[in-house]
Amino acid sequence: MQRYKCIVAYDGTGFAGYQVQPGKRTVQLEIEQALSKIHKGDSVRIAASGRTDAGVHARGQVVHFDSKLQIPGERFKKALNAMLPRDISILDASPVDMDFHARFTSVRKEYRYRISLSEERDPFLRDYAYHYPYPLNLEAMKEAAQYLKGTHDFTSFCSAKTEVVDKVRTVEEIIFNTSDDELVIQFIGNGFLYNMVRIMTGTLLEVGSGKKAPAEMETILAARDRIQAGKTAPGHGLYLWKVDYA
Amino acid sequence: MQRYKCIVAYDGTGFAGYQVQPGKRTVQLEIEQALSKIHKGDSVRIAASGRTDAGVHARGQVVHFDSKLQIPGERFKKALNAMLPRDISILDASPVDMDFHARFTSVRKEYRYRISLSEERDPFLRDYAYHYPYPLNLEAMKEAAQYLKGTHDFTSFCSAKTEVVDKVRTVEEIIFNTSDDELVIQFIGNGFLYNMVRIMTGTLLEVGSGKKAPAEMETILAARDRIQAGKTAPGHGLYLWKVDYA
Repeated sequence: MQRYKCIVAYDGTGFAGYQVQPGKRTVQLEIEQALSKIHKGDSVRIAASGRTDAGVHARGQVVHFDSKLQIPGERFKKALNAMLPRDISILDASPVDMDFHARFTSVRKEYRYRISLSEERDPFLRDYAYHYPYPLNLEAMKEAAQYLKGTHDFTSFCSAKTEVVDKVRTVEEIIFNTSDDELVIQFIGNGFLYNMVRIMTGTLLEVGSGKKAPAEMETILAARDRIQAGKTAPGHGLYLWKVDYA
Repeated sequence: MQRYKCIVAYDGTGFAGYQVQPGKRTVQLEIEQALSKIHKGDSVRIAASGRTDAGVHARGQVVHFDSKLQIPGERFKKALNAMLPRDISILDASPVDMDFHARFTSVRKEYRYRISLSEERDPFLRDYAYHYPYPLNLEAMKEAAQYLKGTHDFTSFCSAKTEVVDKVRTVEEIIFNTSDDELVIQFIGNGFLYNMVRIMTGTLLEVGSGKKAPAEMETILAARDRIQAGKTAPGHGLYLWKVDYA
């Protein structure tokens, strides 16, 4: 068997999320169906760096799978893209060692959250950015982000639905990029809990609009209570941007 | 009656074009339905600067209509946007004189054609740019564009389906903008015939890929024969960008 690593981009709009769910159109289902065609009907399971929710996009999701086929990466990529629908694209496919694992050997992940600040609704961004046409105090948001950086127990910033026990994660960077009518927040860390980026974004927006003070981040983190943090920002502003491996 | 001018943006993906057609979802239908709601069920007809085909987008389409309501532009805009689906947005609404006409008093139009040159399919551009992952000789395209600039009979660059008799138009500017993996061609002129921008784009792409020589543009124009020009580039790369009035 040969293990292959793929970098995958998808527009999350038309999917009920990444993971297979009965009766739903999901990214995993589409890729596994394409792989099955390439393998003459044999089923091939894929493993991803992590799930993404309904509406969440990916520029650099990583998946792996094992195949009895020995095909150069470039050809495997072309074969897969020929079978996949237009809202998923394999950007790279390459053979890797059997000890590579899309989820367990990742060392760093980057998410980006895109916020449209323009007063008018932009019909081209309706599924690709969170429309937030209100004034934001960017300096307060940057100050709040400083409290989130570093190694913390992020229970307060994690959906109560999660089954993960260890909620300690390290956020390496939170970078604010502004251009015209847009704010893009980059989150880089060793891993993120379920809904963590969306809850951090929602909480930072509450700081930016004056509903919370930057220093409250410390209290919220210490509380280890989801209720203390802000709202979960909508899925359609979120992009899984990049996954790094050692 | 008060005449109002609106600047409208729409994502053409979900529409069978601008103009009302029985049984089809069109931009005109959606705007007229929204206006009818605002006018308590009375029908209100709108006139646009021009039609756009299925899949063609608009950043700055202009429409006008007459209303018995006297409402400040800003409030009319908000009321309309509240009634409109998310793929149409009114960017501006303002009262104008009765001698304003969206189509007949326009003096200049700008279209942009967006071409994605990246080798990989970008799932986020599938409905918003023409994917053309082949080498292009940009200098040859610029040279060919020089022949198209100016006042000419554009019969060769017009769909045979048109009913317009006078096919003389003036193309003021054709500007090539390149960035990373993208080419955007701006076309500015006093007016454009049916499919003219898409046929000019398709022909310029044939020059860029070496199938036609730049100087052939002269022969093609002189022939006044649609068959002589290149293919009609797909609708989903085209944007009606801006319409100017005197």
